[in-house]
Amino acid sequence: MARDTKDGTPKDSHYARLRRQHRDEKRGGAPAFRPRPKVGPGEAPADGLVRLYGLHTVRAAIDNPRRRIARMLATRNALERLEIADPAALPFPVEIIEPKAIDAITGSEAVHQGVLVEARPLVPKRLDALGATPLVVVLDQVTDPHNVGAVLRSAVAFGAGALITTQRHSPAESGVLAKAASGALEHIDLIEVRNLAEALQTLAASGFQTVGLDSDGPAELETTFAGDRIALVFGAEGKGLRQKTRETVSALARLDMPGAIRSLNVSNAAAVALYAARRFVDGNRALARQGNTAS
Amino acid sequence: MARDTKDGTPKDSHYARLRRQHRDEKRGGAPAFRPRPKVGPGEAPADGLVRLYGLHTVRAAIDNPRRRIARMLATRNALERLEIADPAALPFPVEIIEPKAIDAITGSEAVHQGVLVEARPLVPKRLDALGATPLVVVLDQVTDPHNVGAVLRSAVAFGAGALITTQRHSPAESGVLAKAASGALEHIDLIEVRNLAEALQTLAASGFQTVGLDSDGPAELETTFAGDRIALVFGAEGKGLRQKTRETVSALARLDMPGAIRSLNVSNAAAVALYAARRFVDGNRALARQGNTAS
Repeated sequence: MARDTKDGTPKDSHYARLRRQHRDEKRGGAPAFRPRPKVGPGEAPADGLVRLYGLHTVRAAIDNPRRRIARMLATRNALERLEIADPAALPFPVEIIEPKAIDAITGSEAVHQGVLVEARPLVPKRLDALGATPLVVVLDQVTDPHNVGAVLRSAVAFGAGALITTQRHSPAESGVLAKAASGALEHIDLIEVRNLAEALQTLAASGFQTVGLDSDGPAELETTFAGDRIALVFGAEGKGLRQKTRETVSALARLDMPGAIRSLNVSNAAAVALYAARRFVDGNRALARQGNTAS
Repeated sequence: MARDTKDGTPKDSHYARLRRQHRDEKRGGAPAFRPRPKVGPGEAPADGLVRLYGLHTVRAAIDNPRRRIARMLATRNALERLEIADPAALPFPVEIIEPKAIDAITGSEAVHQGVLVEARPLVPKRLDALGATPLVVVLDQVTDPHNVGAVLRSAVAFGAGALITTQRHSPAESGVLAKAASGALEHIDLIEVRNLAEALQTLAASGFQTVGLDSDGPAELETTFAGDRIALVFGAEGKGLRQKTRETVSALARLDMPGAIRSLNVSNAAAVALYAARRFVDGNRALARQGNTAS
């Protein structure tokens, strides 16, 4: 799974090359590459910039007209894989560096794939900027950046129009979040609200069925879908939805899990719920089309 | 989401206590707790033991009769949250320690929640030990322990009977994998095979429809389900399924994703596919029951 054909980075041949190099080395050839020393992350970027790294993430940032990039560090190999033939043509300075120069900034644990940009964070929108989308994701104080990044990726994949979070108790945009989102951060409206309960009421007034996921929910997820627009609401791992959120959503729904473990990782729960909601919304649209054709 | 009610650890009240402590401290009260210094992980355990940590993970290991535990390190608070009133009654030695003693072993990045056990790894089974389960997960060289752990958790939640991996190019059991699995490691049969293509043929001969997930798959996932038993096959992030695997499965299936990103994180793809397969299998069983009643 998860083969991404859209951006066409020749990953397979890259890995094949590394494997060949490793094999040649074992056979007594010259060491083709040396493992880089392990280092911790360096200092945070200046001026409120965020650091975005990894091929998918940086490609999406470059392609996003709303993203202001201050500078890029890249290896020659990464530039090739990003298909950037002329770095000087980019509207920001590009430094060509060795991988360890990025290790020194992100730490060697970060899978930066030889490319990093420093950029302004995206400006979150207000709820009244929400477009005509039939599907949105709402996070109730989910703070883990890996989880939020993975939720963003699934939200974009299943065509959700916005990710709505609270201003407080939400993770700031970061390299870890952006890497987990694998480019998705650039493809969705980020909306921040002060008061989540009020936002849920506003969504309901705009025709959204607001469905809170809860492993003790009284109804199975798909039975709670109704109307033309669905807002899926998720709480943090362990804590779940806050009481006020539980009282405000149109429905509390569970995913039926017959096994010995009755809860999913929040990003997995979000992927399943988005899949189911997408099918419901698409089914509605197909019915509407049939209705239009019949009349 | 993801509120786990099954083991009844009083997490909410624990977090509430931490929040109260933090608030009191900000108001000028005595520092209620000090942040622990950041440390890297210590040496690997001796004698081929694995280290399992975190409340869910350790609880499940203790409750698993097949798990041989050599020793446990736990804070008083963790013992309380695990509802272990008499540590001396456990069939292995328990040392009561401060959290930083576990930090020194796992590194402070690991969310160990004050408890760690050293244990023998579980012994993988052979394919001929597979029981009558209608649903299994097959991993084709997925090595990231976070991903494999998260897949295990979803597999157990949706009632899959086994996780089948290759002997080579699979992650060894580890603390990271077990923590991501959140106890699921103890609730599923782990099966290792030498040759994945042969294993897929054996599964097919045992009545499994083997469905490989591939974002370029010719058919939408749910249209590929058939028969009474489903084996879902996933490849690694980026690489996808190997050619031989693609040639051997009964069907290659995609998840329809209308958005700008066309691939999910492998654990998210697995969660969605397991959810859909579970519904298909349960639907079949319901039909069979109706048939039995009618005849």
